Amino acid sequence: MRTVDLIRRKRDGDELSAEEITFLIDQYSQGAIPDYQMSAFLMATYFGDMNDQEVTTMTRAMVASGSTIDLSSVPGVKVDKHSTGGVGDKTSLIAAPIAAACGVLVPMMSGRALGHTGGTLDKLESIPGFRTNLTAEEFREHLRMYNLAFMGQTAEVAPADGKLYALRDVTGTIESIPLIASSIMSKKLAEGMDALVLDVKVGAGAFLKKQVDARKAAQLMVAIGRRHDKRVQALITDMNQPLGYAVGNALEVMEVSQTLQNAGPTDLTRLSLELAARMIFLGRVTMTLDDAREMAQRKLLDGSGYRKFKEVIKAQGGDANVLDRFDLLPNATGAREILSPRNGYVSAIDAEYVGLASAMIGAGRATKDDTVDPAVGVILEVKVGQKVDAGAVLCRIYHTRDERLEEAAELVEDAFRVSASAPEERELILEVVG
Amino acid sequence: MRTVDLIRRKRDGDELSAEEITFLIDQYSQGAIPDYQMSAFLMATYFGDMNDQEVTTMTRAMVASGSTIDLSSVPGVKVDKHSTGGVGDKTSLIAAPIAAACGVLVPMMSGRALGHTGGTLDKLESIPGFRTNLTAEEFREHLRMYNLAFMGQTAEVAPADGKLYALRDVTGTIESIPLIASSIMSKKLAEGMDALVLDVKVGAGAFLKKQVDARKAAQLMVAIGRRHDKRVQALITDMNQPLGYAVGNALEVMEVSQTLQNAGPTDLTRLSLELAARMIFLGRVTMTLDDAREMAQRKLLDGSGYRKFKEVIKAQGGDANVLDRFDLLPNATGAREILSPRNGYVSAIDAEYVGLASAMIGAGRATKDDTVDPAVGVILEVKVGQKVDAGAVLCRIYHTRDERLEEAAELVEDAFRVSASAPEERELILEVVG
Repeated sequence: MRTVDLIRRKRDGDELSAEEITFLIDQYSQGAIPDYQMSAFLMATYFGDMNDQEVTTMTRAMVASGSTIDLSSVPGVKVDKHSTGGVGDKTSLIAAPIAAACGVLVPMMSGRALGHTGGTLDKLESIPGFRTNLTAEEFREHLRMYNLAFMGQTAEVAPADGKLYALRDVTGTIESIPLIASSIMSKKLAEGMDALVLDVKVGAGAFLKKQVDARKAAQLMVAIGRRHDKRVQALITDMNQPLGYAVGNALEVMEVSQTLQNAGPTDLTRLSLELAARMIFLGRVTMTLDDAREMAQRKLLDGSGYRKFKEVIKAQGGDANVLDRFDLLPNATGAREILSPRNGYVSAIDAEYVGLASAMIGAGRATKDDTVDPAVGVILEVKVGQKVDAGAVLCRIYHTRDERLEEAAELVEDAFRVSASAPEERELILEVVG
Repeated sequence: MRTVDLIRRKRDGDELSAEEITFLIDQYSQGAIPDYQMSAFLMATYFGDMNDQEVTTMTRAMVASGSTIDLSSVPGVKVDKHSTGGVGDKTSLIAAPIAAACGVLVPMMSGRALGHTGGTLDKLESIPGFRTNLTAEEFREHLRMYNLAFMGQTAEVAPADGKLYALRDVTGTIESIPLIASSIMSKKLAEGMDALVLDVKVGAGAFLKKQVDARKAAQLMVAIGRRHDKRVQALITDMNQPLGYAVGNALEVMEVSQTLQNAGPTDLTRLSLELAARMIFLGRVTMTLDDAREMAQRKLLDGSGYRKFKEVIKAQGGDANVLDRFDLLPNATGAREILSPRNGYVSAIDAEYVGLASAMIGAGRATKDDTVDPAVGVILEVKVGQKVDAGAVLCRIYHTRDERLEEAAELVEDAFRVSASAPEERELILEVVG
């Protein structure tokens, strides 16, 4: 089997056999296929596409490239939740505690900020003392005791994915739908879950800009799950404007606290509850999805979710008081207001621009080795559709340094569009797949 | 300027600026852009394409990556000839001597066998003593004295092309039309020619399988030439069956000798004369193309081309007697006949299969460092359209070893199609571009 022939066949749109795909991934992760052939294969895949069978094989080979986490000693159905990455997307920190409070076992293996999008681990680590580097044994123990544990992906989980992702990042092949699907699913499958709720973001602030692409990615991931005997459901949700009002690590933890006390933004609350309901349903706690929705709602209102989150923060070494006393969280030293240039309606808030600006002043990373400033970010004062007067505050940029602040402010300014007429209302949850 | 952004833009079909293309080629040839990014860029170019302007810039940057050969001290119009690669294509060894005999200066910088196609240098080196590694000074001197000199491309000519070609070869990006065009033209432009006649092969035995692709490649090369103030004309010619009867290095030299004595195959004679005529016309020896055709014909018939080739062979250290005494050339030790399985008409002779089989028994190379067996190859006994009886000899495989002979024989057998009805006649010269 020659690598160049496989590249050419994928380039020409051929389907590769399971043996061929496995050869590529195995040999690449062992260093026997060089980066320059793999990057050509990835670009060929971007154009030549892959079907369910191919993506499933690729995913399986990536899982096999590393070790898997064995959760079989923890009795019960384990349900994970994953988002393809958004701006202001803190739903994991809300849906997971609510689902856990309902009795679902939630092994949350999360990632870090990437590009303009945030990462659950970075958000959690803005809580003083919070420890995400649990051992596998601790992870199982916490899961048994609290139904919920948060942990970072270890280097041993799907290392082929890690190697491929780094290559994709510098070769313009991030946006390939089969590559996105197999990357996500390889990590999730290696983590020992039984079921998975996916939040596939679509729009200006997401990696996938078009709904047709998001649908395809969702369908592929559901198919990969099915072929691995895992129940997977995917929501396709709007990411044209940031979710909720807060963007930035500690700022988002504050909004999580408010939301778990039923005082959060409508969009964030709604999506978090729907994700929690799907987790409860897939976790077989209720017989119907409607029962699951009712249960999630109840556990939010009675404060069970909020208490669960506090319990887990404490269990992982964090200071749970931060949820009541925001001054215990890292706080920015300055705030810069962005004002509306005219009277009108907010017709767009480009989530990518807001995310990039936030990353630029320290909330994200330019390279993997950068450290994150937990205090900084953006808080919107308005959402799309709202009426504003000229000079009204559209948002505030919370910062700790002046470096790149002007540049970030310009980006945020450009993110807002204020028009004479009200924009059409947009659905938050666009589709369900699986 | 970030390489990944340029990859992404080309992937999305954007036009890159001259500055951007130059950056890519310069940085790559200096080793500042790694292979894995360049291979992704090449695959993106395969799909995203390039326009005249981009290909011209790329070509210019590749020329600038090395040294150029200065032929300005040789007075007169220098006309080169180049084929995109075929099977049995020995026209250079016929057209160049005829054109030189007509007074055209012909600096022939040639390549070696590649894949299933032959190479002019390998053919010449089957002549005992023939030396292709002339110095630039010798090359100029021979050109002045004999109007014609044959030489291999040196490593200093367009080294960026050499580096890119090696990468394309292992990453499935050979077949990209803009990459083919810039690769050919960068070498030709670095060689100091004033005008160029291109033979763009199309069909089963060519790198370009479709006429629309061959046309596009021809148009691009003509455009690159024009933007460099060089006159370029391209013939698009059929390569569905081998050209002439002989495939293999010494075997082709024998056929060249016959053809230069006006006893060669019709197709080979016709194409060689047309190429020579274009060279004579672009070399401004005649005012009209028809005059050039008439002159080429005359110089073939009166033996001037034949004598010129002998003169040049002698000048470059070769034994010119081989043209009269084929036993002085390397000869195969065995011949294997391929017979017609039935009565009928030869409806196809797949040139790629014949070329591959010939390469397999030693006439070509699997890797750059392989040596070529000058004696071996295939001689057709029939051409497409000919009527044959069951058991008639279709061709003979001339070999020196048994290794891979069976495999080659099977390939050659598969190359022939014998059908009940006569095939439609196909044009040899399909189009002229430029």
